[in-house]
Amino acid sequence: MKVILYMGISPNGYIAKEDGDSEWTSEEDLQGFYKHSKQAGNIIMGRHTYEAASKYGYFPFPDAVNVVVTHQPLENKWGNQVMVTDKSPREVLQMLEEKGFNEAFLAGGGKLNSSFMKEGLIDEIYFDVEPILFGKGIPVFAPTDFECDLELLEINKLNKNTVQLHYKVIK
Amino acid sequence: MKVILYMGISPNGYIAKEDGDSEWTSEEDLQGFYKHSKQAGNIIMGRHTYEAASKYGYFPFPDAVNVVVTHQPLENKWGNQVMVTDKSPREVLQMLEEKGFNEAFLAGGGKLNSSFMKEGLIDEIYFDVEPILFGKGIPVFAPTDFECDLELLEINKLNKNTVQLHYKVIK
Repeated sequence: MKVILYMGISPNGYIAKEDGDSEWTSEEDLQGFYKHSKQAGNIIMGRHTYEAASKYGYFPFPDAVNVVVTHQPLENKWGNQVMVTDKSPREVLQMLEEKGFNEAFLAGGGKLNSSFMKEGLIDEIYFDVEPILFGKGIPVFAPTDFECDLELLEINKLNKNTVQLHYKVIK
Repeated sequence: MKVILYMGISPNGYIAKEDGDSEWTSEEDLQGFYKHSKQAGNIIMGRHTYEAASKYGYFPFPDAVNVVVTHQPLENKWGNQVMVTDKSPREVLQMLEEKGFNEAFLAGGGKLNSSFMKEGLIDEIYFDVEPILFGKGIPVFAPTDFECDLELLEINKLNKNTVQLHYKVIK
């Protein structure tokens, strides 16, 4: 099972401002997000990402099974397109594998990213580096003990000021 | 006075591991650092950066006046090549201006970077993005209230896995 993480970030590693605002990412980042989730056929996200996506009107993401990982109650009002689970990263991947997926698309937030990273489950990462800096925010990986090397696969210029860095995670 | 910040970072915005280790930056990052500090004729750093540079045998950096900004006592054993000061970012720049410099080279760490950023004193930033991820560390900007947009000036591939992002700070 190949796991891909795709994140729009500031150059100093934040995915949202302190108040949760992530509306500064580019249209190209959103399009890349759609493209990759459609390709995988699924999209895994944590509670805060689900809430932000709902607030901004993006949830559920089209052309993909939306998996919301949360330990709090959440009623599934969307039917088959959405799965709500409190399983571990490894169990979530196993569940998707049993459903016939061979790729999983991870879409944050920071806590879920770190829980996958800590277990060594992420194979590739796309960082869409946006032209903004702020001094406080929600980090792409919630502070956790993990470390790995990366191999740079591609650099893509998404627009005048946004750079996409595509990495392979060396395990 | 043009102020340039030059930092080797992980893609998630850290300049050092939790224990202060920053020895994972590339040779190309170090060479860029030397090139820009020589060009400016000066290099401004905080206490921890001075201590790390000393530990690794890089201090004082050649071909530049080394300005160490610290509120703790530090004996100047190096003579004219080194200045120890507890002045504010604005005062440090004024001092360099009075000495005839028209460019200042800022080299971290996170606290000093943020104090310059908060005052709107940084004009350009080079981030040498290294191929490593770790979940905890010292952020390139210590958590502080500031926000600005960036303009991407250049993308340079420094080696197989290191990308340099060069930005103009929009004030």
